[in-house]
Amino acid sequence: MRAIERVNSGAAPAYGDDEFTAEAVEHIRRHLGAGAMPYFIYTGTGANVLSLGSCVRPWEGVICPDTAHIYVSETGAPEWHLGTRLLTVPSEDGKLTIEGMRSRITGLGNESRVQPRAISITQATELGTVYTPDEVQALADAAHEAGLYVHMDGARLANAAASLGLGLGDVSSACGVDVLSFGGTKNGALCAEAVVFFDPVLADGFQYRRKQGMQLASKMRYVAAQFTGLLADDTWRDNAAHANAMARRLADGLIALPGVRLTQPVQSNQLFVELPADRVLALEEGGSFHVWRPELSEYRFVCSFTTSPDEVDQFLEHARGVLGGGDA
Amino acid sequence: MRAIERVNSGAAPAYGDDEFTAEAVEHIRRHLGAGAMPYFIYTGTGANVLSLGSCVRPWEGVICPDTAHIYVSETGAPEWHLGTRLLTVPSEDGKLTIEGMRSRITGLGNESRVQPRAISITQATELGTVYTPDEVQALADAAHEAGLYVHMDGARLANAAASLGLGLGDVSSACGVDVLSFGGTKNGALCAEAVVFFDPVLADGFQYRRKQGMQLASKMRYVAAQFTGLLADDTWRDNAAHANAMARRLADGLIALPGVRLTQPVQSNQLFVELPADRVLALEEGGSFHVWRPELSEYRFVCSFTTSPDEVDQFLEHARGVLGGGDA
Amino acid sequence: MRAIERVNSGAAPAYGDDEFTAEAVEHIRRHLGAGAMPYFIYTGTGANVLSLGSCVRPWEGVICPDTAHIYVSETGAPEWHLGTRLLTVPSEDGKLTIEGMRSRITGLGNESRVQPRAISITQATELGTVYTPDEVQALADAAHEAGLYVHMDGARLANAAASLGLGLGDVSSACGVDVLSFGGTKNGALCAEAVVFFDPVLADGFQYRRKQGMQLASKMRYVAAQFTGLLADDTWRDNAAHANAMARRLADGLIALPGVRLTQPVQSNQLFVELPADRVLALEEGGSFHVWRPELSEYRFVCSFTTSPDEVDQFLEHARGVLGGGDA
Amino acid sequence: MRAIERVNSGAAPAYGDDEFTAEAVEHIRRHLGAGAMPYFIYTGTGANVLSLGSCVRPWEGVICPDTAHIYVSETGAPEWHLGTRLLTVPSEDGKLTIEGMRSRITGLGNESRVQPRAISITQATELGTVYTPDEVQALADAAHEAGLYVHMDGARLANAAASLGLGLGDVSSACGVDVLSFGGTKNGALCAEAVVFFDPVLADGFQYRRKQGMQLASKMRYVAAQFTGLLADDTWRDNAAHANAMARRLADGLIALPGVRLTQPVQSNQLFVELPADRVLALEEGGSFHVWRPELSEYRFVCSFTTSPDEVDQFLEHARGVLGGGDA
Repeated sequence: MRAIERVNSGAAPAYGDDEFTAEAVEHIRRHLGAGAMPYFIYTGTGANVLSLGSCVRPWEGVICPDTAHIYVSETGAPEWHLGTRLLTVPSEDGKLTIEGMRSRITGLGNESRVQPRAISITQATELGTVYTPDEVQALADAAHEAGLYVHMDGARLANAAASLGLGLGDVSSACGVDVLSFGGTKNGALCAEAVVFFDPVLADGFQYRRKQGMQLASKMRYVAAQFTGLLADDTWRDNAAHANAMARRLADGLIALPGVRLTQPVQSNQLFVELPADRVLALEEGGSFHVWRPELSEYRFVCSFTTSPDEVDQFLEHARGVLGGGDA
Repeated sequence: MRAIERVNSGAAPAYGDDEFTAEAVEHIRRHLGAGAMPYFIYTGTGANVLSLGSCVRPWEGVICPDTAHIYVSETGAPEWHLGTRLLTVPSEDGKLTIEGMRSRITGLGNESRVQPRAISITQATELGTVYTPDEVQALADAAHEAGLYVHMDGARLANAAASLGLGLGDVSSACGVDVLSFGGTKNGALCAEAVVFFDPVLADGFQYRRKQGMQLASKMRYVAAQFTGLLADDTWRDNAAHANAMARRLADGLIALPGVRLTQPVQSNQLFVELPADRVLALEEGGSFHVWRPELSEYRFVCSFTTSPDEVDQFLEHARGVLGGGDA
Repeated sequence: MRAIERVNSGAAPAYGDDEFTAEAVEHIRRHLGAGAMPYFIYTGTGANVLSLGSCVRPWEGVICPDTAHIYVSETGAPEWHLGTRLLTVPSEDGKLTIEGMRSRITGLGNESRVQPRAISITQATELGTVYTPDEVQALADAAHEAGLYVHMDGARLANAAASLGLGLGDVSSACGVDVLSFGGTKNGALCAEAVVFFDPVLADGFQYRRKQGMQLASKMRYVAAQFTGLLADDTWRDNAAHANAMARRLADGLIALPGVRLTQPVQSNQLFVELPADRVLALEEGGSFHVWRPELSEYRFVCSFTTSPDEVDQFLEHARGVLGGGDA
Repeated sequence: MRAIERVNSGAAPAYGDDEFTAEAVEHIRRHLGAGAMPYFIYTGTGANVLSLGSCVRPWEGVICPDTAHIYVSETGAPEWHLGTRLLTVPSEDGKLTIEGMRSRITGLGNESRVQPRAISITQATELGTVYTPDEVQALADAAHEAGLYVHMDGARLANAAASLGLGLGDVSSACGVDVLSFGGTKNGALCAEAVVFFDPVLADGFQYRRKQGMQLASKMRYVAAQFTGLLADDTWRDNAAHANAMARRLADGLIALPGVRLTQPVQSNQLFVELPADRVLALEEGGSFHVWRPELSEYRFVCSFTTSPDEVDQFLEHARGVLGGGDA
């Protein structure tokens, strides 16, 4: 909420469109590099779909993990608007590997086959894991060598950077990413996303695509101002680090309890845990979490910049009561 | 700005998604009828395109005036996302007439022809004119008789209602409209639009279309709360009536000046005027307006809920100096 | 029919894909230039849509006369598959003029406006008229100067060339056309069309677009062989010249009759005539023709390579009886 | 070739569109049921994509085996034209199972998930296997129970029917199929496919979709006549049974040779075999076949109605020489 208020006060004196948007662009370039070309957008799905639209023609496919937000959680938006196919790779931890990528590079030059043309990776991943800069760079190098563009879904980019104690660009633009969906919403904004190109060829015509893509804000200064609110000082990192810390705190508390097992390493603001199936209903009385893979009794917890230590501790207290988890 | 602050304070205590969204739905139903089915959306283009998507299949066309926002100002978004064709009718005043509509109902049953399936009208129109309820009802009756759905682009619905001294529903849902793009942004919101269906058949599956259409707000309560801010009391009308009054004030002042002629009646918050071509540059030093049809030396002025009488008067003072317009 | 038999016998020994297709490519290059890059296709609509797809992105529009086949007779196929808009220009004779083209070049650089990117002209036009090489060249020069590609719908290219006594390339590729829909079907083939590129940039990836566009023939040799059947000797010209001559013969006979007036010059195989409204039903007993603009009592006659002089004369005889047209 | 000649002679006296098309419709209804609604189409991809377009909206997905032609061999055509997603299920033998289908029915009612709406199965499958009528009926029942339409890709329907000694309808329309892509091309036609609906709701508007889908033949009688050529007598079965028998003959010969192993049962006109990797080049000198899964040294042979016993025997002779396969 603090971040939102900051954004609001930032928006208050908003007279000139140019001034506020230019200021936000400036901040993004400071973080992501002087060559960053940002375009403000309303939704994360809009950012992902429209940025991929700059990379692929309808017969060209996008290689991504089968956990990707674009595959799992966007109702087929890439297919509808772009006519492209998502070439999924099974992933245990939410990451794409070089081997996985190469397994989908087939049928090149065969006119009856979808032609791979881009990869899409998520930082931090949908399973809460984080790519190191070296991992991103290696993937990007392999992708570029194969003639593929590199798209990063950075809906939780701030959480990844905070997790590694690095800058936003260190875990994205500096490692070979061609275009980034840069998320503000999950980092504390009301609704603020940006498509950021690092290759001018990809940016060609994007202003038309954004408008035709139903994502041009008539009052863009409000979207832009939210980025300024996050990026002008360390708000982005404070928010993300706090959310990460709350996830860590929750994880540390939960794994001490009987029948609870982490199914993914906790590297950002999400955790995935196996819970005793017969206690889930009782646990839900203490707080909100989501079923992930029901057949494994696996559940997902998300912490945000608004999650307080007290909330975490209260839930853990409740969980101890339900699971009989000792006297931690 | 007052409206925005109201929205912000309204949004401040927002924890529960359901509660705030449900409240906004309630307000919309109070204004537009108990059968109204609203879906919140970010952009006006999104509202127009996705709502039309419920009306037409790719081979079915939408009849609209050639001044329509969907035709002139959305970069071809309906064509891209829906595959539909806009069947335009020349319009002098921004309105569609029954005769105009009928002129595009051709080729029915011919498999090589686009099949008309909907009309789209704008209230208030892009030229600042307003349909009376009788006009809308007559058009809607004629459309329904021809098997066409009726879509209304209500980006400036509040201005139309305020202009006629009627309610929001009196100039839209009560006159046979099947689906409405209900605009909040031009009425004082930051970014808040809604698609409102009045025919349950059209609403079928719309939640999926909205998400796949990249318009689902993850923090929907903020969008919804803005509608509550406008509709809970008379804010919507105050904002719109004020903007309309400022347009009237500006028009009254301008037409007293030599060489100035209104090209459209002033019925809402916009005015269209012919200006002496050689004085336009000098006039622009006094305030912002837009070229409309350069070959006619026609210009467009837009007043909003933030336009003050002083601003209007200062511009008129400036215009008098430029045009030598007596001592009005 | 002769052409079809020729094609069939040509197809009979067809075992090898490459040989027959390569032969047809060779013939096309001989007619249209060594740089011609042909791709065989099943339908004229497929040729038009897919070739335009190489020219425009979804926010880019195609300027064409409002008589164009892509606008009137393809059920909105360009909109569906490409997301593009057709920017129509009113045309009296089926031709696009430079002035008409320029009237639709507006809003350049405005992100809310469809950006013109190509023109599409038809040779011979849908109204039976024919562009001279000078006319095509002048249009192409003006289009290129404005940054627009030039597409020619050549469904009746042979009729145009035969009408002018010129070669197929003289009225198309030699005059600045960037991509041609080259029609075989109306020239005597069963189903044989080709997209022919003259700019390698536009051809990039077209083999994938054709297959994804549902137009790849698994038995392509049959499509290709039909072009060989038409182009190997003068069959294309004989067929077209015959159809043109039949149209001329029919026109000469009709205009001698009372109440009959040509509404377009007869330059290819079609004629458009005004007929006495009260005699149309009686005329139809003598042969088949189509209503064009009913409000003008205007009708369309099409002659083909199969139309015989006797058929024409019999219809004229019948018409004389119906219209009381002297003792010709 | 015999079938093609038959088609040609059938086409020869073709003057009237209606008569020939009506005759073909009649034959199809005799084979597939009185309620069959056939629409003639040029390509198999066109038949598959356009028929699925009647089943799904853009956010609705199609469940199919990962071997399906629509997934593997159509360059992403369903995604481009329909915006749909193919929800693939791993398949060892080319068939979809009820369990496989159910594994993709997830996320129902969740607005962020693609909603399954149809299944697509291929008869005979891309791996040469054939569904029994009971298998199709059981799948169709399970699909309908789950609210899914049933599409059958019948590019090789005749081979399936001939293989089981049943009629064309016995293995398709009689077992719960809602819409069929009925293939003529692989059964001996030049280019003739049909979309056949068995549910009138799905057929609504299909004539427009076909034309907008670039698949309307202007000379439809030639397409229709090819179906008459196949269906009027037993030509369809003779062609298919012959192709199946040649595959059987080839399989019987090959499996007697050292190092050769069938990887799929031979139930129609295709066979899949493992070959000694180091002898493949030498084998190819004796005839044409295709690599399937190179990592398994698996190859695909296709026999057609034109394959002669002599050709098969000559290839086997050659193979015996290469592989040293005794004196079978």
